[in-house]
Amino acid sequence: MTKGQTDDVPTAANVLSVDAMGGDKGPATVVAGLATFLNQAKDARAILHGPVGELTPLINKHGIAGRVTVADAPDVVKMTDKPSHVLRQGKKTSMWSAIDAVRNGDAAVCISCGNTGGLMAMSMLRLRKAEGVNRPAIACLWPSRNPSGFNVMLDAGADIRADQDDLLTYALMGASYARNGLDIETPRVGLLNVGTEEHKGRAELKVAHELISNAADIGEFTYVGFVEGGDLPSAKVDVIVTDGFTGNVALKTGEGTASLIGELLRSSFKHSPLSMIAALLARGSLRRLRKRIDPRRVNGGVFLGLNHTVIKSHGSADATGVAAALHLAYRLAQNGFSDKLAARVASAASLAQDAAQEGAAENSTSTITG
Amino acid sequence: MTKGQTDDVPTAANVLSVDAMGGDKGPATVVAGLATFLNQAKDARAILHGPVGELTPLINKHGIAGRVTVADAPDVVKMTDKPSHVLRQGKKTSMWSAIDAVRNGDAAVCISCGNTGGLMAMSMLRLRKAEGVNRPAIACLWPSRNPSGFNVMLDAGADIRADQDDLLTYALMGASYARNGLDIETPRVGLLNVGTEEHKGRAELKVAHELISNAADIGEFTYVGFVEGGDLPSAKVDVIVTDGFTGNVALKTGEGTASLIGELLRSSFKHSPLSMIAALLARGSLRRLRKRIDPRRVNGGVFLGLNHTVIKSHGSADATGVAAALHLAYRLAQNGFSDKLAARVASAASLAQDAAQEGAAENSTSTITG
Repeated sequence: MTKGQTDDVPTAANVLSVDAMGGDKGPATVVAGLATFLNQAKDARAILHGPVGELTPLINKHGIAGRVTVADAPDVVKMTDKPSHVLRQGKKTSMWSAIDAVRNGDAAVCISCGNTGGLMAMSMLRLRKAEGVNRPAIACLWPSRNPSGFNVMLDAGADIRADQDDLLTYALMGASYARNGLDIETPRVGLLNVGTEEHKGRAELKVAHELISNAADIGEFTYVGFVEGGDLPSAKVDVIVTDGFTGNVALKTGEGTASLIGELLRSSFKHSPLSMIAALLARGSLRRLRKRIDPRRVNGGVFLGLNHTVIKSHGSADATGVAAALHLAYRLAQNGFSDKLAARVASAASLAQDAAQEGAAENSTSTITG
Repeated sequence: MTKGQTDDVPTAANVLSVDAMGGDKGPATVVAGLATFLNQAKDARAILHGPVGELTPLINKHGIAGRVTVADAPDVVKMTDKPSHVLRQGKKTSMWSAIDAVRNGDAAVCISCGNTGGLMAMSMLRLRKAEGVNRPAIACLWPSRNPSGFNVMLDAGADIRADQDDLLTYALMGASYARNGLDIETPRVGLLNVGTEEHKGRAELKVAHELISNAADIGEFTYVGFVEGGDLPSAKVDVIVTDGFTGNVALKTGEGTASLIGELLRSSFKHSPLSMIAALLARGSLRRLRKRIDPRRVNGGVFLGLNHTVIKSHGSADATGVAAALHLAYRLAQNGFSDKLAARVASAASLAQDAAQEGAAENSTSTITG
């Protein structure tokens, strides 16, 4: 994409900007996932970023040349590249090109399987933070007992810190994401803590508890108060708000626990001839279970709080995982999510702060008057 | 127990002090668990705390009267009692009596199914922090791929804060616990973070990384560096150190994930007649799996950093769970764990700090000399 910034050109809501490079499995997997997705989403188009000589044959092989434009980018951001290096040396990478396509309004949402730190740093640089956002966050989907099958948790690790105002912003952004990404009209938001009692937790959590509670009407969500780690997959909440340190540990702990249980389950079915027969018969049941908690179905950490939406797909995603991330991106693109989110946060954050200041003023008055 | 403090009486290493009250299932379950335990540990004895009129028939029913002394305590700490209330009003409770029995040297380890906050507050008040410990911690066992089947994680929620010195103390205490509770000669200690690279994480984690690394020889452990949430069940580490906020969220997230998978597994086996037959055949395999990750086997959060050892058993523990906590308590009692831990922390913490100060002095010298 060599066009300059074109604020007057309307965003092409049916075009996705796809970084073909940087995933562990190479561009063939990304293009295969793209083909799967395009086959299902008939109106969708894509701009695919990477070395043109490598991508063209892949596109032709899948017969999707008519719906995909290649943006030639010779360089690749490697998994081991540090964010600082990526910012200095990244201008000719497919990642940079993919981000700039949404910056320029040629596509609605950017998707990359590349290095998370690099993608966030480059997205911050090129897309800038949305008004009212101090710390962008990564929202992830968590398998849950809710009808949609998922809860939203943020921040999953964009920033290891979050103060009370950041947590309020996360609540607003998470609610907007649940509405546009999971079709939940009035999401229920909870704040992650070590207990549900009001007196528990760190000081900033108690303040955030007040701020989020006050912002519920403006943000069109229901605030359910403090929730615990065990509530992440629960049906009593749709959006779980936490700082990126806690969120990242929780996410990896959940994944690690699921993977341990999967291993133990497989090994317990190899215990004896009878259990191997049982395993054969149980295959259907286990497949249903696997489908329900398949990490490929929840593929796609969404960067929230920038001027456009960027989705980070797992580096190890296969074609099914890439297609899942593209479907999520497309749904958000169709809903005009970026603009809705920006409007929501900008207005809600300032209103909530006004409310909080009024509340503080009232409190001090009542102290004076007894 | 009406005896005064008797520092000159040697600790009875084969006597456990058991709070019969405060669990969700009442004293009958605790006494049943005690009977199971005593049946397996032939030299063990117990002091059982609670209303004598209620406990005596239970003891007689299980035929363990010869090995159990009842300490009459009329009051019970309820699950809903706040720690401050427990401290003010708790003198006649079974919990207070159970703690005082180890304080007085009549028993080696105290076990209670009661309210965690109350038990910690009362233990702090009556047993006091060990020398060199600023914040006591709760260590829990985590199902893992290690030969022992478990890893140790601390702090699981005694304190929501932990600075660099606390994290060092946790490393020393956790290593000592793994040695005495899990028979691991030289435990491998890891510090929980959002990535394994040295530049990642909060400032206090980077300092703790240095402190723990320097203390490895003195503490007789191997330091493996930063670990992530996914490493909690891994075979590359035996002891995972973190603050009580993160640890509590991780613990509950792991439990919540395991319970979600268990539910989904059960429902996927009820899908069709064929899958119900499969479930029947798979019962043995599923039982093996359940046994491996049975929370009752890992029952018992150990309070570390007090002058005696206190074990918090799950409030909802059944007799098997209570027996598991008693076996753990007995193992620690037999190993003289409390004294070993106190000696280890007191000497190691001061030595490590000396080393760190020398290191800092060397660094500043080398800066000056280039």
